[in-house]
Amino acid sequence: MKQKTGILYGLGVGPGDPELITLKAARILNSADVVYAAASSKNTYSLAVSIARPHIPDLTAVKMLSFPMTSDPQVKKEAWHANALTLIEELEQKKIVAFMTLGDSMTYSTYGYLLKHVRKLAPHIPIISVPGITSYQASAACLNSPLVEGEEALLIVSGVSGGDILRKFAVIPDNLVFMKAYRNIADITVALEEIGLLGNSVAVKNCGLPDQQVITDITTLQSSPPNYWTLVLAKQKKIDVPEES
Amino acid sequence: MKQKTGILYGLGVGPGDPELITLKAARILNSADVVYAAASSKNTYSLAVSIARPHIPDLTAVKMLSFPMTSDPQVKKEAWHANALTLIEELEQKKIVAFMTLGDSMTYSTYGYLLKHVRKLAPHIPIISVPGITSYQASAACLNSPLVEGEEALLIVSGVSGGDILRKFAVIPDNLVFMKAYRNIADITVALEEIGLLGNSVAVKNCGLPDQQVITDITTLQSSPPNYWTLVLAKQKKIDVPEES
Repeated sequence: MKQKTGILYGLGVGPGDPELITLKAARILNSADVVYAAASSKNTYSLAVSIARPHIPDLTAVKMLSFPMTSDPQVKKEAWHANALTLIEELEQKKIVAFMTLGDSMTYSTYGYLLKHVRKLAPHIPIISVPGITSYQASAACLNSPLVEGEEALLIVSGVSGGDILRKFAVIPDNLVFMKAYRNIADITVALEEIGLLGNSVAVKNCGLPDQQVITDITTLQSSPPNYWTLVLAKQKKIDVPEES
Repeated sequence: MKQKTGILYGLGVGPGDPELITLKAARILNSADVVYAAASSKNTYSLAVSIARPHIPDLTAVKMLSFPMTSDPQVKKEAWHANALTLIEELEQKKIVAFMTLGDSMTYSTYGYLLKHVRKLAPHIPIISVPGITSYQASAACLNSPLVEGEEALLIVSGVSGGDILRKFAVIPDNLVFMKAYRNIADITVALEEIGLLGNSVAVKNCGLPDQQVITDITTLQSSPPNYWTLVLAKQKKIDVPEES
């Protein structure tokens, strides 16, 4: 059967280290007709493009989709809708469209919303999602510290609303990841102290990038607020950070 | 400073699809002096080797480390110790050693134990861990279903001890992954029913492999027990499995 539309690929390009992209994402970037990146912040856009650049032929268009940094759900929804229509217009012209996100396409990603809107507005368009390495996986690898082992559990939360998300859980698993721990680091620190995990917490900034930083005493972040890319790993067991990092 | 020993690389080679390996893991496989894989089961070994094979030069030795399938902690510990000594012997000869595991090197991986033993027995040897795509990330991508969004949380557990790990948590997060859901699928199904998530659960078998299977009614697995590679994704929200999968 002849393809009547293009294909939408949702690619995770990994957390920053340009080598942590998969062969699959690299191949799709190489063969796409047009590549889109989310510009939720200027840095996000530049970092995704710099990871992807070696795999994108010179003549391929690289375009930006703007997502407003707002908490207003109506404004957000309208932006997803408009962005989905932009992609659909390309896809109806039988183009292969690659939309790329930092980290994994399925983990706290703008792509998830875009996917839903495209599927709703144009259910006939084929969509293929490609996973990517997350920042928490890369951080655990940098620390040579397993994320989760044996019969343990791993809880992954967003720090956008501070430490309250942790306070909801009566039982805290063996391993914990706080993504986006930048804005509310003070309250996250308090929440970790409340459950006795403060001493077993490590923050990783800009993991896999030249200015990567490992902070073993996360209370120091309260006086110098970390950036967007900071995450906190915490364990019931002590995290054994090697000397050389 | 001249390197006095080799380097141990712990590589995650992804969940099965040979394209879901990172450029970094592929490069290291290409330049290693010797490549090891865990033979926790015959299938594990063969799958890891088949993913890695295109990246390993013909003359590079590919060797197997045996890990006994036992619950006896003493037998296990002795096996880790013996395997660590095998690697250290190669490393002391200044060889670049790559130890590969399926999925991610830091997520329920044999590598985590090996890493600790090597570090303890030979702390002077440099160790570099390289993350890989997990089976749960690949499964979510296959389903075009986000793992975790916005201010949601994601809990990842091992199904090795059945549903009890879920019963420990008074509050169940928005999103749940049961890895290794093969042996105790009956009890896992019961635990998911207890918390009202049975209808929002999907099992994925052999994700990314030619015989991949998506099971939307996981109660059917009780009569035909799934294999080692099965995992269950569950959500508080309904998982919208597309028709085409």
